[in-house]
Amino acid sequence: MGKLVIVGTIAFDAIETPFGKTDKILGGAATFIGLAASHFSVDAAAVSIVGGDFPQDYLDLLSNRNIDLTGVEIVKEGKTFFWSGRYHNDMNSRDTLVTELNTLAEFNPVVPANYRDASVVMLGNLHPQTQMSVLDQMTRKPDLVILDTMNFWMDSALEDLHNVIKRVDVITINDEEARQLTGEYSLVVAARKIYAMGPKYVVIKKGEHGALLFHDDNVFYAPALPLEEVFDPTGAGDTFAGGFAGYLAKTNDTSFENMKNAIIYGSTLASFCVEKFGTERMLNLSNDEVHKRLLQFKQLTQFEIELT
Amino acid sequence: MGKLVIVGTIAFDAIETPFGKTDKILGGAATFIGLAASHFSVDAAAVSIVGGDFPQDYLDLLSNRNIDLTGVEIVKEGKTFFWSGRYHNDMNSRDTLVTELNTLAEFNPVVPANYRDASVVMLGNLHPQTQMSVLDQMTRKPDLVILDTMNFWMDSALEDLHNVIKRVDVITINDEEARQLTGEYSLVVAARKIYAMGPKYVVIKKGEHGALLFHDDNVFYAPALPLEEVFDPTGAGDTFAGGFAGYLAKTNDTSFENMKNAIIYGSTLASFCVEKFGTERMLNLSNDEVHKRLLQFKQLTQFEIELT
Repeated sequence: MGKLVIVGTIAFDAIETPFGKTDKILGGAATFIGLAASHFSVDAAAVSIVGGDFPQDYLDLLSNRNIDLTGVEIVKEGKTFFWSGRYHNDMNSRDTLVTELNTLAEFNPVVPANYRDASVVMLGNLHPQTQMSVLDQMTRKPDLVILDTMNFWMDSALEDLHNVIKRVDVITINDEEARQLTGEYSLVVAARKIYAMGPKYVVIKKGEHGALLFHDDNVFYAPALPLEEVFDPTGAGDTFAGGFAGYLAKTNDTSFENMKNAIIYGSTLASFCVEKFGTERMLNLSNDEVHKRLLQFKQLTQFEIELT
Repeated sequence: MGKLVIVGTIAFDAIETPFGKTDKILGGAATFIGLAASHFSVDAAAVSIVGGDFPQDYLDLLSNRNIDLTGVEIVKEGKTFFWSGRYHNDMNSRDTLVTELNTLAEFNPVVPANYRDASVVMLGNLHPQTQMSVLDQMTRKPDLVILDTMNFWMDSALEDLHNVIKRVDVITINDEEARQLTGEYSLVVAARKIYAMGPKYVVIKKGEHGALLFHDDNVFYAPALPLEEVFDPTGAGDTFAGGFAGYLAKTNDTSFENMKNAIIYGSTLASFCVEKFGTERMLNLSNDEVHKRLLQFKQLTQFEIELT
């Protein structure tokens, strides 16, 4: 079994949806990635930063799931990164109401010594320079580096972003971001342009329309499970990435066929994430429920056709 | 093998896309449905109307593919239905530039006598009263009636639309139309409301995001094949419906499992349709090419997962 390094925010979120609103609750990319990856009983470590205002209870939720928190810096006199957003009625778009970087502004990630030989590194959405500094600390080339990013860095730090993209194996972005990064509308052409930037695998997240995996001339398309109700999309993309990374760290197999399975696990876990506010559903999710939903994914997508 | 009745427009289209524009070319729902269905060597008849300006060559293209045209009325002194549209850069939205109903305004469909016992009826997008009059002519209840419609009729003839929806087995609409018809954002909930209107199967077309099939508590999601270039989306929805109807007419099996295959055939044929202007690609499509692309669909969507 491989070791997994997870880099990303651990945060407070305050969320408004058509179904209600929350006070400050547990959030952040590393949180959702870690909770998803914990379903694969891998050796995972989170690298992040929080303030003295961050409840020990929240940290315990992660460490109780065997996520090593040695790499989580606690700045006693600082405040934890805070994000607040309001989703529109269609749940596909949102307005950011508040972004308080707080301690995140001085985040200098330190990978714990015993994780610098990790086989899988999952770089959650952060400033590309921060993501880069993690790669610089690894004492051996990881088998797989996965990068999540967003349009914000394409607008504000494109050169840095290109520098880190060069060094990763897999990039996960949404369809609009793939188009922005490449200037190509066709996702097939966009993926090909991204290969030339460095990553040999391109994962395109399309929300309620599923996710695509591109590699060479291969494409895999995992639909999202159609849900009766999307309660809160916050963290779904990170949960997807965490399931993807966790499954690959566990299976230690980066073939295209196995990456398909990683996509399916990611999609499955993400389909739970949106059922409740924030991390609530992920904190109460049994392996049995995950297995049942994997079977639903099979029924959703698998067919037996005879050529006529 | 079952008989298939296809009701819909046979038309002139003039199309503008970012790739170029056409003069008046062959178009219409019954045309695309018929060309797709002709891949299943079923006994198919088109019920439609054209003017004296419609070239015999175009009619021959259909009859050469064994589509019975007895039910296509030719109004010598009339003009053929004409539609012109311009696609936006994203190819997902378009402006209608011209709609000349011409002979379509007086269309009274007449199903040929030897097709009134057809097993499958495909009602292409038309006024719901026109669709209804076809059902009234059938001498036995068809095994399967498939209805295509659009938001225009929801806005202008909702009561008539509900009357025909009551009498069909399958409805094919796009996601926005499903939401408009039911007032529900969730497609799962929308499908359930549509069951209560009559159809036991709901097919939701999502263009580049694929198609969903709902029946009772079952869902099947067929992604669209990601394409390097979408040249002209005109007729893709009708081609999808024609493949779906043709496969079901040929196999005479309306189980959910077999409908999955029908969806895959429809998606496969539609993926060709968009590669060239109008009917051009569908008029030059070998069964061998269709088989190869079916295999691509398998690779695109099929996975082998072991539960861990």
